[in-house]
Amino acid sequence: MKIKTILHKTVPIASAIRNAYIDFSRMDVSVVSVVSDIVRNGKPLIGYGFNSNGRYAQEGIIKTRLIPRLLESRESDLLTDDGRNFDPTKAWQIMMRNEKPGGHGERSVAVGVLDMAIWDLVAKIEDRPLYAVLADRFNAGLANRDVYVYAAGGYYYPGKDIEQLKAEMLSYLDLGYDTLKIKIGGASLSEDLERIKTVLKLVTNGQALAVDANGRFDLPLALEYAKALDDFNLKWYEEPGDPLDYDLNTMVCQASQTPIATGENLFSMQDARNLIRYGGMLKDRDYLQFDPALSYGLTEYLRTMEVLAKFGWSRKRCIPHGGHQFALQIAAGLGLGGNESYPHVFQPFGGFADNNPVENGKVRIPDAPGIGIELKKELLKVFPE
Amino acid sequence: MKIKTILHKTVPIASAIRNAYIDFSRMDVSVVSVVSDIVRNGKPLIGYGFNSNGRYAQEGIIKTRLIPRLLESRESDLLTDDGRNFDPTKAWQIMMRNEKPGGHGERSVAVGVLDMAIWDLVAKIEDRPLYAVLADRFNAGLANRDVYVYAAGGYYYPGKDIEQLKAEMLSYLDLGYDTLKIKIGGASLSEDLERIKTVLKLVTNGQALAVDANGRFDLPLALEYAKALDDFNLKWYEEPGDPLDYDLNTMVCQASQTPIATGENLFSMQDARNLIRYGGMLKDRDYLQFDPALSYGLTEYLRTMEVLAKFGWSRKRCIPHGGHQFALQIAAGLGLGGNESYPHVFQPFGGFADNNPVENGKVRIPDAPGIGIELKKELLKVFPE
Repeated sequence: MKIKTILHKTVPIASAIRNAYIDFSRMDVSVVSVVSDIVRNGKPLIGYGFNSNGRYAQEGIIKTRLIPRLLESRESDLLTDDGRNFDPTKAWQIMMRNEKPGGHGERSVAVGVLDMAIWDLVAKIEDRPLYAVLADRFNAGLANRDVYVYAAGGYYYPGKDIEQLKAEMLSYLDLGYDTLKIKIGGASLSEDLERIKTVLKLVTNGQALAVDANGRFDLPLALEYAKALDDFNLKWYEEPGDPLDYDLNTMVCQASQTPIATGENLFSMQDARNLIRYGGMLKDRDYLQFDPALSYGLTEYLRTMEVLAKFGWSRKRCIPHGGHQFALQIAAGLGLGGNESYPHVFQPFGGFADNNPVENGKVRIPDAPGIGIELKKELLKVFPE
Repeated sequence: MKIKTILHKTVPIASAIRNAYIDFSRMDVSVVSVVSDIVRNGKPLIGYGFNSNGRYAQEGIIKTRLIPRLLESRESDLLTDDGRNFDPTKAWQIMMRNEKPGGHGERSVAVGVLDMAIWDLVAKIEDRPLYAVLADRFNAGLANRDVYVYAAGGYYYPGKDIEQLKAEMLSYLDLGYDTLKIKIGGASLSEDLERIKTVLKLVTNGQALAVDANGRFDLPLALEYAKALDDFNLKWYEEPGDPLDYDLNTMVCQASQTPIATGENLFSMQDARNLIRYGGMLKDRDYLQFDPALSYGLTEYLRTMEVLAKFGWSRKRCIPHGGHQFALQIAAGLGLGGNESYPHVFQPFGGFADNNPVENGKVRIPDAPGIGIELKKELLKVFPE
């Protein structure tokens, strides 16, 4: 059993939107096909991987460092001890050979893309959905196929006004979502408050709305927003300041009545652990949004789960960034609190399987082998064969 | 005044050495030539940049994200307000446009390479050495042209034995260095102690020797080494554990009699600040080794210097990693404590200008415009024209 070849492609997911920090007009992602020598139904078994939006394609690292290391390894180095499947941890260690510690960004995305493909392949070899494999291995067999998802949107489009924001939010409610998220920090506080009040008129209460500053604020502004948000009983206040400014985060956590959510820009177990150690996050209130596709994959995410357990955090506090099927499978298999979703944007990567409706804010994972990328027709098309 | 073109090349610096973490048999670096439209002596004025060893070339990020942003910017966006020179801070902000916060690795190297070239160009336009430009702008005109340097070596070569280590260290003393550094953690503690004792016989006292674990140890082993090193009165004990494990670092700082040195695997002001905030480093004893070439360049390094000042750290505690002429100029111009040097390895990037001897552990920077890459013949050859 071996990897025959690994194909990589850079794919645009450009769109005319922006958050408080960047615009996405030139955003792209890496997609890989890890082709095994196993043949099923006359076709080679292939694992698919991609990265989520926001941190660009990683063609350089994937092609010059990671793929050569995987393809040059001995066949048995990538397999479980009994030789019956690939071993994602061994593959991970081979990818990270001759890589120095620290500096977790970009490389974490590159490894995440390939790690996703390897887990997809592992589950396909077992002929089971990934969530079921994960539940058996890491969650005492307990899976939760009905995953809570929230609709992340409310970006700043050029020329977008309040009426358009309202229409966008209504479309998410129509799709079956019951929690919405909008961007803040890309406009003035008073404009943002108007956006918030507009959306709150569409839902039953503040718990149906989260807001996301994308790390834009300095401490005074983060605290000013925290105070202003206190009135609304919102679901959460996301990434008030720089993701590595744990002192700022601690002060906002202390000042805010609204739960704090952060972590999408921390890309390793070590960085996640620093947030837990120094970031002032409250384990009975706040949310952790580490994105396995951007953070050295599921293999590293499992290490992060171990750290969380050691610090007394429940996995239920984790709602990953990224809105992809990979994190959806992980949420179901490991018993996370839910998953992000981008109903209209970042296509074909946003959203889940085709004809897989959201009902009462939850999505039921269909029972296909692997991650289920084959169930999303437009997504499957982007992978190189 | 504008940038006409930017050329990039990936150059191998492979060598048959290893530290406790990686081997360097496939290491490479990025080199860039930033070609301006200014003509001097019939030739275009060019700024040169490269990254130091250990974190690989960054062709992907440089070519797909950074160079296009620089070349597509308006001419005036890159210039000082009076239009008489390039403005490195403006160039930096253009390179980081549409980049999310956090995730400081790889991208930090890519930006560092280009930032170095832009500073080289800025000093050449002023027709002065970079250290003089920096002293005027950021150090009240005070430059120290005689920079303390130490000889970093003592890697684990395949089959290398104690006699070879001795010969290597003697060669550095012959070159004029008075402080040596060797690797630890790639062998057993008893073997490493033998290496240390061997080198100590060649020098007058422990202050002439530093040791470097390259982030290899877990807490118990880091503490075991700390205790064993206490006997020798060494210059420093470098990177005992994972660079982001600030709790570990704090405990080693508290337990160790030997000064602690770390920071080469922290690649942003935010990460450096976290070390200062949470890492337990003692400002009257320990050393900070942030490498500007790997960490978003001098432009970001100046932000780190501001943070250090705020926390009451002297620049004299900074001795950058990397052994390159760029950090040497920065050390002289900003008044740092010194600079690393690799006398034989990582050629042609290791070492300083040709015919520029080390005397009593110091090197005098020659008075050429810019960084002085033109004074190192074999290095100049690698840059694309």
